[in-house]
Amino acid sequence: MSLRDIARLAGVSVKTVSNVVNGYAHVSPETRAKVEKVLAELDYRPNLSARNLRRGRTGVIALALPELDAPYFAELSRFVIDAAAEHRWLVVIEQTDGGLDRERQALDGVRDHRVDGVILTPFAIGAEELAARTDDTALVLLGERIHDGPADHVAIDNVRAARDVTEHLIGLGRARIAALGAQDNSASGTAPLRLAGYRQALAEHGLPETVAKVERYHRAEGAAAMAGLLALDPRPDAVFCFNDLLALGAMRTILAAGLRVPEDIALAGLDDIEDGRYSTPTLTTVAPDKAELARIAVDLLRQRIDGRPGQPPREARAGYRLVPRESTLGR
Amino acid sequence: MSLRDIARLAGVSVKTVSNVVNGYAHVSPETRAKVEKVLAELDYRPNLSARNLRRGRTGVIALALPELDAPYFAELSRFVIDAAAEHRWLVVIEQTDGGLDRERQALDGVRDHRVDGVILTPFAIGAEELAARTDDTALVLLGERIHDGPADHVAIDNVRAARDVTEHLIGLGRARIAALGAQDNSASGTAPLRLAGYRQALAEHGLPETVAKVERYHRAEGAAAMAGLLALDPRPDAVFCFNDLLALGAMRTILAAGLRVPEDIALAGLDDIEDGRYSTPTLTTVAPDKAELARIAVDLLRQRIDGRPGQPPREARAGYRLVPRESTLGR
Repeated sequence: MSLRDIARLAGVSVKTVSNVVNGYAHVSPETRAKVEKVLAELDYRPNLSARNLRRGRTGVIALALPELDAPYFAELSRFVIDAAAEHRWLVVIEQTDGGLDRERQALDGVRDHRVDGVILTPFAIGAEELAARTDDTALVLLGERIHDGPADHVAIDNVRAARDVTEHLIGLGRARIAALGAQDNSASGTAPLRLAGYRQALAEHGLPETVAKVERYHRAEGAAAMAGLLALDPRPDAVFCFNDLLALGAMRTILAAGLRVPEDIALAGLDDIEDGRYSTPTLTTVAPDKAELARIAVDLLRQRIDGRPGQPPREARAGYRLVPRESTLGR
Repeated sequence: MSLRDIARLAGVSVKTVSNVVNGYAHVSPETRAKVEKVLAELDYRPNLSARNLRRGRTGVIALALPELDAPYFAELSRFVIDAAAEHRWLVVIEQTDGGLDRERQALDGVRDHRVDGVILTPFAIGAEELAARTDDTALVLLGERIHDGPADHVAIDNVRAARDVTEHLIGLGRARIAALGAQDNSASGTAPLRLAGYRQALAEHGLPETVAKVERYHRAEGAAAMAGLLALDPRPDAVFCFNDLLALGAMRTILAAGLRVPEDIALAGLDDIEDGRYSTPTLTTVAPDKAELARIAVDLLRQRIDGRPGQPPREARAGYRLVPRESTLGR
């Protein structure tokens, strides 16, 4: 069964069938549906391996992120895999643990160019090293703080999101608002952006800052850092944690100490992972549009793979919204 | 720099260098370390794409599971990716959503044989269809209830684990113990095994059963099913949820109704996801040895890929342990 036969049955041109089979854009939804109906009836399966070899492609992209077992990254990965499937791409997942060596490996096209492109969430690697990169594997940066940098980049506006959360806590009458999640060890993480947004809001209202640092964004570190904040005199009456995992760890420490959330200490996170929708109290957070982040990242990568080298890097923004819940509003 | 040069520098045979570079077994840890030291000093990077092509291999395996954003699968995936990296394999993740069509696709070697082997956690597909499979892509089944079946298989002893949890609740003096998580729609899920273990324990003590069904193992369904159990008169004094997500959803419903865990209702799950270690109260659960599950699955797949066709399927067991926490023991 040739493309010509399929074109005849679907009543479209051979070129259109080719566009649909290859997952290219520029086909109207109606035409695409018509062709796909014929393909389904014929149980047509393109020989992808052969075609990819011919085009010098593997049909595989890599998603390199710090850790798959952090719920935010697991949820984001689901959307990236779904978006990639629209282009008939498989997604290899590489875990960097935020380590410099493993991020460098991912940048080199994941172990000897076995992938067509890489979506990277960097933590340890810096803008300078990225700019000096010689490997030409297509690259998109997802969700960190390297802006106007050396590669296509998509993220939410982290400064504004952090300012929104802090304004929310100020609006509830809290005056001793701590930030939990500053980091010394990250070259590319979002911590400095979130810290900047927190500071902007406090400065506008003439409120003092209290900043607790962590190395990684895990529940255990949120729990430990919160114990440090509880030892302050006076202790904070609100805490903005730089992600939901830190906030859920902090919540455990507060409740285990016999204090109430939000009556004694209001608590907010960022990421909107599902855990925070079922905790008691439920967790106030910022919900990045993860589906949009994934879709934009995959689209940018697609254009980078199909495009000419030397095109200038692009910046894209995904949306977010503040989601106030019981941990700040009460029940 | 040839294998011969490397062998000379490491003081071993060319065959041994080849075994190390290819990630084969049969090399002592000391010898492997010696060779890898030389490889590292020389910054040797094998041309994997070329070698894989020569061997008719892609160097990529697929992990097909219902959903990456369920924390149990995210945690398990981390271990599978780590275990596969020891063999220099990349891991493509396919999400089946427990759907029959997508499980069939995964069984066909993931879209046109672009992978060397598949590790599948089936839900909808049955033993009969698996036995009738004609595709010869290497296959290992991970963590479901198809036993003595058509493919290599590794899981924990789900019947015994469920019986252990139920015995734990009985040992605490609970007499109206409900099970939350039975399923009608699964051909291969673990629900029937966990139900069997629950029933065994109740039968031994002459206690009555109460069973709540769900379609999927999500927090939302645990929360909804728990609302149904709260409406019973008398209501249960303990609930064994068939996974931790269901239990965390159920916990939310109980606490939001103004009842106490475990004073009014003791609660236990299964999976030991991190969420349950930081909830208030912390969640009693069963901890499957996920690292061992992953390691065995990857080892079985490796042997299946390297072995001769027609070797009989093997059954393997990974360990587990009961982890009592505040949701049954109190604080």
